[in-house]
Amino acid sequence: MNTEKKPHFINVANMNQSMVKADCAIIGATVRRAGEIVQDMASGKSYPFKEIQECNTGNPQALGQTPITFARQVMSCLMSPELINGNTFPEGVRKRAQYYKDRIKGSIGAYSQSSGFRFVRENVAKYLEARDGVPSNWENVMLTEGATAGITMVLSALLAQKNSGIMLPVPQYPLYGAIVTLGEGQQVPYYLHEESGWQVSINDLAQSYEKASRDGIKVRAIVVINPGNPTGQVLEEETMKQIVEFAYKNDLCILADEVYQQNIWSDKKKFVSFKKVIHNMPSPYNKTPVFSFGSCSKGFHGECGMRGGFLETFNVDKEVDVQLHKYKTISLCNNTIGQVMIDLVVNPPSVQENGKEVYEQFCKERDSVLASLKRKATVATKTFNSMKNVECQEIEGALYAFPKIKLTQRAIQEAKKRNIAPDLLYCLEGLNATGMITVEGTGFGQRDGSYHFRTTLLITPDEKFEDVLERFKKFNDAFHEKYSDVKTPRPRL
Amino acid sequence: MNTEKKPHFINVANMNQSMVKADCAIIGATVRRAGEIVQDMASGKSYPFKEIQECNTGNPQALGQTPITFARQVMSCLMSPELINGNTFPEGVRKRAQYYKDRIKGSIGAYSQSSGFRFVRENVAKYLEARDGVPSNWENVMLTEGATAGITMVLSALLAQKNSGIMLPVPQYPLYGAIVTLGEGQQVPYYLHEESGWQVSINDLAQSYEKASRDGIKVRAIVVINPGNPTGQVLEEETMKQIVEFAYKNDLCILADEVYQQNIWSDKKKFVSFKKVIHNMPSPYNKTPVFSFGSCSKGFHGECGMRGGFLETFNVDKEVDVQLHKYKTISLCNNTIGQVMIDLVVNPPSVQENGKEVYEQFCKERDSVLASLKRKATVATKTFNSMKNVECQEIEGALYAFPKIKLTQRAIQEAKKRNIAPDLLYCLEGLNATGMITVEGTGFGQRDGSYHFRTTLLITPDEKFEDVLERFKKFNDAFHEKYSDVKTPRPRL
Repeated sequence: MNTEKKPHFINVANMNQSMVKADCAIIGATVRRAGEIVQDMASGKSYPFKEIQECNTGNPQALGQTPITFARQVMSCLMSPELINGNTFPEGVRKRAQYYKDRIKGSIGAYSQSSGFRFVRENVAKYLEARDGVPSNWENVMLTEGATAGITMVLSALLAQKNSGIMLPVPQYPLYGAIVTLGEGQQVPYYLHEESGWQVSINDLAQSYEKASRDGIKVRAIVVINPGNPTGQVLEEETMKQIVEFAYKNDLCILADEVYQQNIWSDKKKFVSFKKVIHNMPSPYNKTPVFSFGSCSKGFHGECGMRGGFLETFNVDKEVDVQLHKYKTISLCNNTIGQVMIDLVVNPPSVQENGKEVYEQFCKERDSVLASLKRKATVATKTFNSMKNVECQEIEGALYAFPKIKLTQRAIQEAKKRNIAPDLLYCLEGLNATGMITVEGTGFGQRDGSYHFRTTLLITPDEKFEDVLERFKKFNDAFHEKYSDVKTPRPRL
Repeated sequence: MNTEKKPHFINVANMNQSMVKADCAIIGATVRRAGEIVQDMASGKSYPFKEIQECNTGNPQALGQTPITFARQVMSCLMSPELINGNTFPEGVRKRAQYYKDRIKGSIGAYSQSSGFRFVRENVAKYLEARDGVPSNWENVMLTEGATAGITMVLSALLAQKNSGIMLPVPQYPLYGAIVTLGEGQQVPYYLHEESGWQVSINDLAQSYEKASRDGIKVRAIVVINPGNPTGQVLEEETMKQIVEFAYKNDLCILADEVYQQNIWSDKKKFVSFKKVIHNMPSPYNKTPVFSFGSCSKGFHGECGMRGGFLETFNVDKEVDVQLHKYKTISLCNNTIGQVMIDLVVNPPSVQENGKEVYEQFCKERDSVLASLKRKATVATKTFNSMKNVECQEIEGALYAFPKIKLTQRAIQEAKKRNIAPDLLYCLEGLNATGMITVEGTGFGQRDGSYHFRTTLLITPDEKFEDVLERFKKFNDAFHEKYSDVKTPRPRL
């Protein structure tokens, strides 16, 4: 046995190539650069800022958003049930903890049923029914490890063949493209219209679908993110109806990523679920199947770390539901904390159940988070539009701004020289100058020749956010100056 | 558009067929039957038992095991950080909570780094180093959503082609077969030797490998579960060395499922990790790559619901590690509670850090759980061997008994008539008679013509376990009587 010639047992060339291809830009080049800066700072090197701002992921509590006290105190009681009988926490909190204790067999440390605690699935169904005025059956609700795991599962179920295609918005939260790549399926992009506030054009959908069909792709589903990530638009109900008609006519399931449903900032818009739109359409469109996703990571709880999510199926073949529930048994169950957190999202405290004091504190905290986000959405839209060579559509919902940047030829050539995307050059220099981690538009997809970046609205408190934006504005001006195409002629003396 | 002829958008025939094929027996037919019994009992129907005993999954806290107070009180503090400055919990608990608070950016409700909190990865590495006396680098440690997610990820990485094969023990925890099916790879079974206490035979490995190679399968890895699930054996170090030689010679990675490493009951056995064995072997065998898995669900914490796990890579190509870490970014991160729970597993309290009182309570609780499990392993081995037509190898480790049952032809024919596996018939009748949910050996794989079932050792307290076993013994005798092949001739009067 010649050990010198021994091949690698597993290496990048002989491992699963879908895994090698799949990527997620939101934890990519700018995050790696931020890591280097942190190390630099630790070893004494100085930067023109005091701390890194992680504006690359929608991660509210990493940037100062405080958790909702009620939810956390209830969780503390579930961790240490002796607190239920003590007096550390208000009675209204302990009452809710007792409610959970009564319904969870054994302990929060036991595996739950694979599809999630039944009582939480029932409460999600009640919540959806109240939201939409449309019947919801708990058996069509499944709890998932964040919305991510539900989305991954449904996409996997749809990717039956190598030529199975999924229509994905561009720009798009990159999870979708990554999962389609991992599942060895085909991405079928449809572009959002930036000029009309990132709305969907039905003509574009049809063209995109037809092109894919011509290419031999069997399109199975269309993903719609509403409110949009990274684009922040809230869809018009009329557009949603057109999407449903389009989907029905072409045998497409709809994947409705509605994790930002509680994050609406425009006074002119409101959230309407795809399920509601479909239910209220005339036959046969009211038969269109939809998979809808929710989460405890967004809204006003922002409990990303707990990885709670849910999936509701509507108009989906019953046997498919059976298969999805069976699939869930393979990994036993989601973490139970995230499941209870979903219950806390859909089942908030009330005066009747939890008393006036607990309820009022909850409302105050909820309103404060939402009001701050709304102010920041306004400030961000305004400030980005005040920057040189930057244009930003109104942020109607969700937690992000996705401004367009007009880059000079010199900047584009500099990026080419460094073998990186031009908008990544912008983001990296922005990070070096301000400490703000943003993500290049390339990571979400964009029309050729256009450049963007995404930032979250999450820096808390508001003043700090405004301060960082102001510094970013200075960076932006300096960047465009630095890479200016036209040298300003020196004034003659 | 003729809506009558409209095909289903997604159905069992046109969805991903790997998902349809993949199955997990431990939440299968017996669990469904138990659900019916619960409904029956709720509507007044009586059964010869008061409650269902979920002995189908290794789920300690569902069956009465109490959580470790220290871990839970620390978690309560992380949920409600005001408890750190209060006096509800002992100082030693609050000190540990402060340690976590200092290291977690923002809050436990924020996403962590994708591969897990760095400080936890560092503590896992320290723990492994102390366990094995072999260097461990935190960069080779990744935190995962239970061991399950780590195993799933590594198997996916190895299944590069349709003919990629994984050697799996039979009997086997069914996750492995399900994931290989989902990844459209090939299962290459190797049988454990029941008669020699479920040990591995190297001749069998070689034969199994050669057969697979002849069938055109490119074998990539071998899975070893030690201590065994469902079989409860603890491998001899000599056998492990032979497995390593076999793996090295055939270019196989080793997947070492070591989640039961703290659950050793035989006084004659001790746990040795594959990493340690490999490290201490002569060249070139000390270059064999191994992926090792750990968990917070087993041991004495039994915190299944928190879904904490870890993976250590050793001798694995660095670029593969990079790919695995990149893959993790797609789903952002694991739940943070499970990550901290892993820290609590590898970083227990001490007198120095947490004071005598906290430390002593921890030790008492730990020892009590482990002593009870050890007693139950002994009782189970003894009681099963005292049952008619039942034979049970010594339970040396892990949380299960996997007894062999000798079924009569009549029982086998009855099962055939009902179109179920013969050992499932046994488990279903056992459930109807005793309330104990067990899992048929068919669900784990077994030699043709042999029949088994798996039960956990987890019913708490011990007396209750013994009581259930006694009732099961009566059922077993009655079952064999009921399906007896030879009618006892009536005594002549």
